Amino acid sequence: MNEFDLIARYFSRPVRRAALGVGDDCALLQPAEGMQLAVSSDMLVEGRHFFPDVDVSALGHKALAVNLSDLAACGAQPLAFTLALALPRADEAWLAAFSRGLFALADAHGCELVGGDTTQGPLNICITVFGEVPRGQALLRSGARAGDDIYVSGTLGDARLALEALRGKLTLPPEWMAAARLRLEQPTPRIALGMALRGVATSAIDISDGLLGDLGHILKASGTGARIDTSIAINLIADGTYLERARGLFSHETRLGCVLAGGDDYELAFTAPVSARPAVQAAALQAQTPVTRLGSIENAPGLRLVDAAGQPVVGPFASFDHFA
Amino acid sequence: MNEFDLIARYFSRPVRRAALGVGDDCALLQPAEGMQLAVSSDMLVEGRHFFPDVDVSALGHKALAVNLSDLAACGAQPLAFTLALALPRADEAWLAAFSRGLFALADAHGCELVGGDTTQGPLNICITVFGEVPRGQALLRSGARAGDDIYVSGTLGDARLALEALRGKLTLPPEWMAAARLRLEQPTPRIALGMALRGVATSAIDISDGLLGDLGHILKASGTGARIDTSIAINLIADGTYLERARGLFSHETRLGCVLAGGDDYELAFTAPVSARPAVQAAALQAQTPVTRLGSIENAPGLRLVDAAGQPVVGPFASFDHFA
Repeated sequence: MNEFDLIARYFSRPVRRAALGVGDDCALLQPAEGMQLAVSSDMLVEGRHFFPDVDVSALGHKALAVNLSDLAACGAQPLAFTLALALPRADEAWLAAFSRGLFALADAHGCELVGGDTTQGPLNICITVFGEVPRGQALLRSGARAGDDIYVSGTLGDARLALEALRGKLTLPPEWMAAARLRLEQPTPRIALGMALRGVATSAIDISDGLLGDLGHILKASGTGARIDTSIAINLIADGTYLERARGLFSHETRLGCVLAGGDDYELAFTAPVSARPAVQAAALQAQTPVTRLGSIENAPGLRLVDAAGQPVVGPFASFDHFA
Repeated sequence: MNEFDLIARYFSRPVRRAALGVGDDCALLQPAEGMQLAVSSDMLVEGRHFFPDVDVSALGHKALAVNLSDLAACGAQPLAFTLALALPRADEAWLAAFSRGLFALADAHGCELVGGDTTQGPLNICITVFGEVPRGQALLRSGARAGDDIYVSGTLGDARLALEALRGKLTLPPEWMAAARLRLEQPTPRIALGMALRGVATSAIDISDGLLGDLGHILKASGTGARIDTSIAINLIADGTYLERARGLFSHETRLGCVLAGGDDYELAFTAPVSARPAVQAAALQAQTPVTRLGSIENAPGLRLVDAAGQPVVGPFASFDHFA
């Protein structure tokens, strides 16, 4: 099967919203009146972002999910994506499974494949995603202000637990492992929440490298500091369901480390004024996505971890760095 | 140097036209009133698209050039691009050279870097490029009609000669090799010509895989066939300058093979009605890019190679295929 057959068989579908899709030199996109186009690119590399024995359909999901998560963090509605794929060989079973997972998520968000590239090489998946956001309403990293509340969506840390379990470093009970592995391999981009937070949140980011590191980007871009209540944060682990088991199995430090610096969560961290608390709850309800308030933005630079009594907490919670 | 320092040092520049550039979850683009956004992605893999000992600055040029070439083939004006980069390690000398070549070409076309991704992995460069084209005026592959002339820009085949020379399969005189190597390693995207051909050309494509294969995409998309005069085509080799030497050094078949199926030319192949011959010449003049008329579109399916007398020519001119 040559490159063109391969594209035709697995990656050519009629487009409905784009002006022109796969099969010409360029795709053509036409943002609606008054809309800006939000654009993001992410590259997934075997051995770095996924294991060689990963479920391939899940990989198709995740490759798009991590990109959609960037749209979510901007409050953008998914529109289209391009896929560039380097494959060691044209493996039909691989392509069938990959495209199945990819398109299931794409269809769920009305996001259509409009172009891309396939080539031979070490397995590498590069997706560029396009979304629409009303002009001037994109959620940026730079809008946090002293006094704002800090929220995160969903739960944190289970993806890291699953990763460590797959590495053989720890063991999770089977049913929890299944749930945690879903969090690692098939993260949920918080598109509906991001859109619902337009005009409500003052800043937002998606948590890919770990809460502390990613929140740090908001603080830097906004010129502020923050305080995080670790007594709230630590309960974000174990998907809510397995909290008691988590307490029995893992130290406080391990649990907090996974929540604060685990990475691969693809939840949203965002800020909003205290006056917007009802609006944040309404957005969470509308998006059917739980959110937790776990701190506040402060003028003093730096990120302070405190306990329930407001006392400083210290810990070795360095954030994940791709070149560390 | 960690990932964020690396992005800041080599790939963060203020944007002038984009609404938001590098440093947030998404970039924000705003096509001008009445414009569509043309989008294309290309991925370059070491060993497949370039040699490990390639001049790194030239690689930066080529990675963007092959994408700009897709915009040229649509008649789009470059606007912005994203860069996703997998690197074995954060090598400052490599990054300095790569970004130098990349930005030199980007600046020449007013095309700004608005986002991307860096990660550790086997060397892989994925660029997604964005251009603007007036609504409904993009040059497509599907517009060729029987009777249209077929043109190519510039010259063809030298990139393949340089490739074969680098592989040790043939030898070129030094000054010709230097010129041919520039064609291979630093191709010129025909942006000005593509824009000048809006409303003139009926179809267009850029020649990355070889003239016959890429012209074949136009024929398929347009539901037509074509006739190419090989006695004209064969003189497109040797950059015009070294034609006599080419005749002395290489067989007719080698020369014709490089022109028809060499690949990596990044010239434009396009069609236009006979009535548009003066307009095509005017476009070529305006873009300061030579064009050569070398055949015509026909109703009968298939691509016929003919000699100066119109007699059929046969030859083993299969086009390059990335999975062949």
